[in-house]
Amino acid sequence: MPADNASRLHITLGDAIYSLRAIRRLKPDPISDSDLATILDAARQAPNGANQQEWHFVVLRDAEVRKRFGELYREAWWAKRKDNGYNSPEELPAHYRSPMGLAESIGEAPVILLVCATQPGFRESVIPATQNMLLAARALGIGGTISTLHASVVERVAELVNLPPDVTIVYSIPLGYPKGRFGPVTRKPLAEIVSQDTWGKTPSWA
Amino acid sequence: MPADNASRLHITLGDAIYSLRAIRRLKPDPISDSDLATILDAARQAPNGANQQEWHFVVLRDAEVRKRFGELYREAWWAKRKDNGYNSPEELPAHYRSPMGLAESIGEAPVILLVCATQPGFRESVIPATQNMLLAARALGIGGTISTLHASVVERVAELVNLPPDVTIVYSIPLGYPKGRFGPVTRKPLAEIVSQDTWGKTPSWA
Repeated sequence: MPADNASRLHITLGDAIYSLRAIRRLKPDPISDSDLATILDAARQAPNGANQQEWHFVVLRDAEVRKRFGELYREAWWAKRKDNGYNSPEELPAHYRSPMGLAESIGEAPVILLVCATQPGFRESVIPATQNMLLAARALGIGGTISTLHASVVERVAELVNLPPDVTIVYSIPLGYPKGRFGPVTRKPLAEIVSQDTWGKTPSWA
Repeated sequence: MPADNASRLHITLGDAIYSLRAIRRLKPDPISDSDLATILDAARQAPNGANQQEWHFVVLRDAEVRKRFGELYREAWWAKRKDNGYNSPEELPAHYRSPMGLAESIGEAPVILLVCATQPGFRESVIPATQNMLLAARALGIGGTISTLHASVVERVAELVNLPPDVTIVYSIPLGYPKGRFGPVTRKPLAEIVSQDTWGKTPSWA
């Protein structure tokens, strides 16, 4: 019931956008069916290429499936670090501490969402739905973060959840109640990321 | 001033998400500097790969630049239709009427936003910002729609706005006050797009 779902998202858009940040430390407390339905109902309202809706959301909740996914995610996370020349926790720069923590514990998140594109060529088209999903979760007090999988585990994750051949995983997103807090993010100033009419001409209002 | 921008987005998240639809018929009335600043400030709060913020927004407002962009957009739109075997307005199925109308008139939109990725490999990473932007515009009563450009015009659009070599345009988005109304979208039911734990297992709550 969309009207019902809409009314559950009653924080302001400003509060949702300005307090949404990556939440990587999650409580194991379960997320209710109705909250999941609201989050995914918000997802499917998003714009998408020619309204083809070539998206599918695989919701991992079973403890065994999450545990196995967690093992693959951890392997994938370290494969990415090794691609960048980091081979052990000791070698990692400080800003990797929180992502490494997630890589160790993602299987304990109560829900892991796999955002999938159901046809080749539609990966970009499913991404606006992901942002609706994170904002809706935020409105319900639920946090998470977007991550991509290293190519080395993609096939095994696809097998784990029996994906058909043409379906690809775009993002995996753990969801749960935050151990920390929502809050503002750090971003470049507007003047650095906006041009008017021609590249590099910064408008007076930015 | 982020706090100020946040407080300007005072409709509920539910109202924003559930009334955001593609607006293709736009009034020529200008959009204020402060509204543009609010829309783009909302964009930069979005999640993005490793907080690298490899995004840049080129805001077309000059009448000549918009006119020239409009000509290229129209050419691109027809190039896509011809790729699909439609060569003239008479051959087009009815659901192309509204997009064709936009293709004829996009140069008259008061603002056209080019959402760019500033490094190769970061196209997907700029898309959540686009959804923040459309939601923020919606909160201010401003509409638009996401579109991609046909490869045949990409170089000429890049020249028009002097893009550096590594920068690519991900989406172009006309913005303006709607001639029609915001309102709900038509989407597949949740049960068709959600699986739990394994592909094709529809959860009871979807």
